[in-house]
Amino acid sequence: MSANAGSGISGRQRPARLGRRALVAALAMAGMALPAAAAPLLTAAESDPVALGWMQGFPPPSEKIIGQPDSDYFSFPKLRWTVCHFRELLPTRRVSRGLEAPRALPYALDPNIDAVTFTPLGGGEPMTWEAAFDANYTDGLLVLHEGRVVHERYAGCLDEAGVHGAMSVTKSVTGLLAEILMAEGALDETALVAEILPELEESAFGNATVQQVMEMTTGLDFSEDYADPEAEIWTYNAAASPLPKPDDYEGPRSYYEFLATVQPDGTHGEAFGYRTVNSDALGWIIARTAGRSVADLVSERFWQPMGAEQDAYFTVDAIGTPFAGGGLSAGLRDLARLGQLVLDGGELDGKRLFPEAAVERIRQGGDRDAFARAGYANLPGGSYRGMWWVLHNEHGAFAARGVHGQTIYIDPTARMVIVRFASHPVAGNAANDATSLPAYQALAEYLMGRDPRAE
Amino acid sequence: MSANAGSGISGRQRPARLGRRALVAALAMAGMALPAAAAPLLTAAESDPVALGWMQGFPPPSEKIIGQPDSDYFSFPKLRWTVCHFRELLPTRRVSRGLEAPRALPYALDPNIDAVTFTPLGGGEPMTWEAAFDANYTDGLLVLHEGRVVHERYAGCLDEAGVHGAMSVTKSVTGLLAEILMAEGALDETALVAEILPELEESAFGNATVQQVMEMTTGLDFSEDYADPEAEIWTYNAAASPLPKPDDYEGPRSYYEFLATVQPDGTHGEAFGYRTVNSDALGWIIARTAGRSVADLVSERFWQPMGAEQDAYFTVDAIGTPFAGGGLSAGLRDLARLGQLVLDGGELDGKRLFPEAAVERIRQGGDRDAFARAGYANLPGGSYRGMWWVLHNEHGAFAARGVHGQTIYIDPTARMVIVRFASHPVAGNAANDATSLPAYQALAEYLMGRDPRAE
Repeated sequence: MSANAGSGISGRQRPARLGRRALVAALAMAGMALPAAAAPLLTAAESDPVALGWMQGFPPPSEKIIGQPDSDYFSFPKLRWTVCHFRELLPTRRVSRGLEAPRALPYALDPNIDAVTFTPLGGGEPMTWEAAFDANYTDGLLVLHEGRVVHERYAGCLDEAGVHGAMSVTKSVTGLLAEILMAEGALDETALVAEILPELEESAFGNATVQQVMEMTTGLDFSEDYADPEAEIWTYNAAASPLPKPDDYEGPRSYYEFLATVQPDGTHGEAFGYRTVNSDALGWIIARTAGRSVADLVSERFWQPMGAEQDAYFTVDAIGTPFAGGGLSAGLRDLARLGQLVLDGGELDGKRLFPEAAVERIRQGGDRDAFARAGYANLPGGSYRGMWWVLHNEHGAFAARGVHGQTIYIDPTARMVIVRFASHPVAGNAANDATSLPAYQALAEYLMGRDPRAE
Repeated sequence: MSANAGSGISGRQRPARLGRRALVAALAMAGMALPAAAAPLLTAAESDPVALGWMQGFPPPSEKIIGQPDSDYFSFPKLRWTVCHFRELLPTRRVSRGLEAPRALPYALDPNIDAVTFTPLGGGEPMTWEAAFDANYTDGLLVLHEGRVVHERYAGCLDEAGVHGAMSVTKSVTGLLAEILMAEGALDETALVAEILPELEESAFGNATVQQVMEMTTGLDFSEDYADPEAEIWTYNAAASPLPKPDDYEGPRSYYEFLATVQPDGTHGEAFGYRTVNSDALGWIIARTAGRSVADLVSERFWQPMGAEQDAYFTVDAIGTPFAGGGLSAGLRDLARLGQLVLDGGELDGKRLFPEAAVERIRQGGDRDAFARAGYANLPGGSYRGMWWVLHNEHGAFAARGVHGQTIYIDPTARMVIVRFASHPVAGNAANDATSLPAYQALAEYLMGRDPRAE
């Protein structure tokens, strides 16, 4: 769960140049936050990208430039600017909203939500919903209850007319597409990957099932340890980069070429292992099955029919492949529209956009034993299915999650959808779960008490 | 008037590698088409990018990939795909349409327009409007008469939901912004460039007036001869490229840095010399004056208030500067909306979006003697003002023009706006003017006869 695995944006880095960021990333991958004593981080206000003046002026002062050749541009606090500006640094493929008028979101804002109080995971002083916003370095937060917007706030680089990197929330969008194809009978979850993609016959994916890929229980020899110069993540990042390769480069040149090189480690189906390459493999499976790229499918299946108000986009590799594991940037309200569509099981305004079975399967969850072996302390009893995180809590909540605090959190019992974009200094969500997950639960309970229809 | 001057997309090329494309470009710059005997070009149908299969499949066959490392991607026939896909190859900056519903264009399609007949410049057999579409390798063509769409057709890589490179039509959009700032009193056309941009004090631009920049009568030592390895265009392209520079690169790293290196040649104000760097300088003047980038101004002054139906975008350099001389990609209908707004002198639905004086100044035209010295055979008696081409014909027509056939052609007498996107194999518009300019005039006369209100 690296900050930018596969986006190509760290393709030019080498371990020797990594310092603090590698440390943060490595700790985050291990589910640990950086000890506060080691390096006091700037607060949300102190690291505000507008206040810091990144990329302002014509030209910006040299020390305020965040540009492509600057390999440091996804480090904190620069990343607080970068999360809204990937397209200005990298080639991208559009997710068209089409040409129609956007479908309006109904509003019923509730100013009392700011005062909703919760106790952070692990105990500590109670915190308000409002205080959690900055504590989590939130850039945008929107809550839908019963399909109406009850809360909406922006900060940092984002406003209602901008887009923000969804990071690994992208995986869940990709996974939803796959679940839809399965529910429609176009894709068989028991099929071996090599039956769909003969190019992966010789790789570790070849004898994995589609379901194992979708639940990330494949046994892969793939390390995302940035501190290890031999880690596969380096080859992956180089392959994923859309930028011209060095003249002496002899490695894989696309997501697809990289996937073919992945070797097995362990047995498929035994343990959950969160590896982005599974999402890239799934993106390829989807494209081969549907004859459409993931970016086009997101437009055709979601963005156009749901009446999105902004185009979204994917970062791409050197042959135009959308980064199915983390490349989506979108508007906050459009992410909320997608979340509501999932909550509603694919129905919008009385019209069915995809089979309800696609969402039902996700909500059932995946192999909880396999998940438990990965040891996610903040998600006890959880599972992973269709590239969504299933909490298996009393409300039956499930979520899309991306590094630095991105989420779509869906609570079917409270009829609540929370979407959040953030730029937390620590990549792993273990660093913000403590002040997020209990806040979501508290808000759900508040909303259920407020609106008897939801009981 | 090169194919891609300043877009950064040929920044990695060197003269030794240029073959046929350099020949075509060089001939085009001299107003000459390649002799048909030398190399029979594929027809529009033969070079159709969909039929040729560029970038289709997952992955596309290797010989069908058009990617960033492939320095040949703006050569014909590949360019017929590339003109719709710049953002997939390069970093870009969005021109937001905002979040509102698009303003609908009224339709009154006239199927008889296809049969309108004209005689090509220089004589020859009469040709129909319909036949000219393919003869000019047209990708999209839309005609507004009295504000209503009377003709619309797409081919090649484009449809109504896509965008296409506007190439040097961008200059006219930049120029219009400058004319607006002047009409609003924010910019003085008699000011010296160095008074606004002290950074250009030591360059050739320093002692030129804003007006000289806008009419391209600056005396600059700047060659766009791709066949000459010492030509300034090479340094310009390298500076403009948003891609990481080679380790041993020591030249300018942005449009701004390049502009500061331009040396004088000749006397300002004497002769028209079509050089893209003037538009880049104007873009900088605008940004410094308005405190907003050209991309943001196009959004705020045009795209949002005119109710555009698609976001547009600009390619950018390594510090995010929009390419004011040629980087705009837009939807055809939105380009038509802009053309209609210009024809209507800045008024839309009874509301004034900018002072009418901005358009009046363009229509008056520039220095015709200075223009005549440049010897544009197809535009006799013409001039260049506010970065628009003014024909000074009986109808008072004026136009934005970009290589490979892009245009906004405005005929105030006929109350007609023609917008065209194309991917003609020859860069210079001299290659398509013969089957375009007389067609536009014939259509204007047809429309005036058809609708008495226009008389």
